[in-house]
Amino acid sequence: MKVFITLIFSIICVSAFSQKRDNRIVIGTIDTVYSKILNEKRTLMIHVPQGNKDERYPVLYLLDGEDHFYSAVGIVKQMAGVIPDMIIVGIANTVRDRDLTPTHVKTNNGQDNLSGGGENFTRFIADELFPYVDAHYPTAPYRVLSGHSLGGLTVVNILLNHTKMFNAYIAIEPSLWWDSKKLLKQAQQQLASIDLSKKSLFVAIANNMPPGVDTISVMKDTLNSNTQVTRSVLPFVKALKDAKPKSLRWGYKFYPNERHGTVELNAEYDALRYLFNYYPFRSSQFDEHPKLNVDSVLAAHFKMLSDNFGYTELPPESLVNSLAYHCWELNKPKEAFSLFKRNVDNHPQSANAFDSLGDFYAGTGDKQKAIEAYGRSLSLQETVDTRRKLEELKAKK
Amino acid sequence: MKVFITLIFSIICVSAFSQKRDNRIVIGTIDTVYSKILNEKRTLMIHVPQGNKDERYPVLYLLDGEDHFYSAVGIVKQMAGVIPDMIIVGIANTVRDRDLTPTHVKTNNGQDNLSGGGENFTRFIADELFPYVDAHYPTAPYRVLSGHSLGGLTVVNILLNHTKMFNAYIAIEPSLWWDSKKLLKQAQQQLASIDLSKKSLFVAIANNMPPGVDTISVMKDTLNSNTQVTRSVLPFVKALKDAKPKSLRWGYKFYPNERHGTVELNAEYDALRYLFNYYPFRSSQFDEHPKLNVDSVLAAHFKMLSDNFGYTELPPESLVNSLAYHCWELNKPKEAFSLFKRNVDNHPQSANAFDSLGDFYAGTGDKQKAIEAYGRSLSLQETVDTRRKLEELKAKK
Repeated sequence: MKVFITLIFSIICVSAFSQKRDNRIVIGTIDTVYSKILNEKRTLMIHVPQGNKDERYPVLYLLDGEDHFYSAVGIVKQMAGVIPDMIIVGIANTVRDRDLTPTHVKTNNGQDNLSGGGENFTRFIADELFPYVDAHYPTAPYRVLSGHSLGGLTVVNILLNHTKMFNAYIAIEPSLWWDSKKLLKQAQQQLASIDLSKKSLFVAIANNMPPGVDTISVMKDTLNSNTQVTRSVLPFVKALKDAKPKSLRWGYKFYPNERHGTVELNAEYDALRYLFNYYPFRSSQFDEHPKLNVDSVLAAHFKMLSDNFGYTELPPESLVNSLAYHCWELNKPKEAFSLFKRNVDNHPQSANAFDSLGDFYAGTGDKQKAIEAYGRSLSLQETVDTRRKLEELKAKK
Repeated sequence: MKVFITLIFSIICVSAFSQKRDNRIVIGTIDTVYSKILNEKRTLMIHVPQGNKDERYPVLYLLDGEDHFYSAVGIVKQMAGVIPDMIIVGIANTVRDRDLTPTHVKTNNGQDNLSGGGENFTRFIADELFPYVDAHYPTAPYRVLSGHSLGGLTVVNILLNHTKMFNAYIAIEPSLWWDSKKLLKQAQQQLASIDLSKKSLFVAIANNMPPGVDTISVMKDTLNSNTQVTRSVLPFVKALKDAKPKSLRWGYKFYPNERHGTVELNAEYDALRYLFNYYPFRSSQFDEHPKLNVDSVLAAHFKMLSDNFGYTELPPESLVNSLAYHCWELNKPKEAFSLFKRNVDNHPQSANAFDSLGDFYAGTGDKQKAIEAYGRSLSLQETVDTRRKLEELKAKK
């Protein structure tokens, strides 16, 4: 059966509205996890894509979760098909200056403060948050960490000192000036030697410079506190360029029209596009090059995706289904068949996959196999349409 | 009383979680309006900012609402303070090809179709949707219309032929090729003469061109259906440049790294930044220029905003409150007083505005006026903190 997105949407809307109570547009849930390490309850904002029951998703962890959750969900939903559907876990702050600072630094006036809890916070993520999220949500073993400002500092700290925790890192205007540029210095010394294989990194730099100052002269602008982030991030990017860490895939972007406090949305978007630039599957290539074998191209693409993700990524059932019907319409029954077959092999619990295979057998004159496929579909889920097709087929001589 | 955002967030989270049922993260509601003009029920996705009861907001209307609602909410929430808080009304499609085509065009093979319902759909918006939204939501009289592809075509049609309906227009990759470029031709002929005063327009152009083709040579690429949008939008931008419609404020952007189907999020973001580029109030200017009179600068800024919006826009209570305390801390009591006073004048129903004014009187030794202000605050809302301060003050000799 061909499935139309618009129809599904209408059904969701109508059913949502028919129950007055449930007319809310929901993008996630508030969850909590108790941390023994931090000795406190932590609030999480969690978005899970609406997919098939058996699908699992990469996880995007957001520092300063309460500030970036809504826009991250907006990006991931808008860019479906261009970047992967993802679970998003926004970690809401309790004591931000404690958690997002890797080392302790005294306040200027010598007063004490809580800074330097970053390593504890990192242990919380690794030993308590990861197990909780993996136990309660349909996660795939691919994790992205995104942070801005002190959150970006934390991202760079975890990249350098707890590299294995995440697969990909997004550092937006990281506060690498912290603690006399301690992390920047570590990066400058160690980037060429530490093992960053199969990791990815995106760095975003905003324009915090006063008029007339550029990315070269800003380095002398040492009295301007607005540019202290810039004066620590530019050398970090230079260190990445100099070290040429072969094993790290990394990119950066400078935003001339955004400042430290406005760059986050654009940066998050560009970062996700960069990190998953290998992801999109362009169905239009088959219109441009009609001789391409659809099934082979599809298989090769998802083999490449699986290599990048580090686990097997199956082509989405709906994509394969529509490609199969498309091939069939173009009078390429052999390719259509291998696609219909691929879907029932990959999704043996899908009534619709067997219904579609049944359509193909019925349409190509294999009555017995069509009856079998429709029967299998109905054994998984009773559907008026499939039942009707089965009865009509049986009645035929 | 100073109010801290983080605290408020924590309270929301905790209270949300304490009721298991209400742990959902909600960004809007599904609403419906019955259209006599279209003879059908229409589904709306509606986001209302969480502000004070008496605040009213500009309204962003989205065509293809189901496709762009989540990202638009993400943008507006992320960019709070940079662009205005807005009500967002996503109009979900029923028969898209009917509603978003201003004129009827026969299908290539001569078969009939439903296209050409655009004028009816526009009447629905003006005569049924506007009254419904204005009656049920806290709208201010400033409306933005945003559309992509055929939605963009509809935006340009309403701009040219129903100009007064909206204040600002966002046309993302408008399908101006429709009906042998009928609307493009109208634009080329009439843009210099029609009255577009006080209107704003942003046009987004994606890169749909094959390798080796640029924005000049694409005009000869007449056999490539992928570039037909580009071949109609580029002449539209040229028509705008040539006509120099003085009364229209307009801008455009070309996206070299985005295609027709991926450009929407970036375009919506840039459009809102462009349309409201006069909006941000930079509090940091007072650190850079300590001699500025805060109250005067604030008043001038919101006078300018009001001129742009076409209605009185008051400075947000929370902004004025924090600026007032800031001035007071900087030992500028006269400016602080005028700001505290401005807030109670603008928000006579705000208990917190009177509490803050009470703090100021108490701190500057005017016991009698402090007692009056705290009393007024308590008459609006009983608060433990204010009650305590009032009792302490009364007990003092």
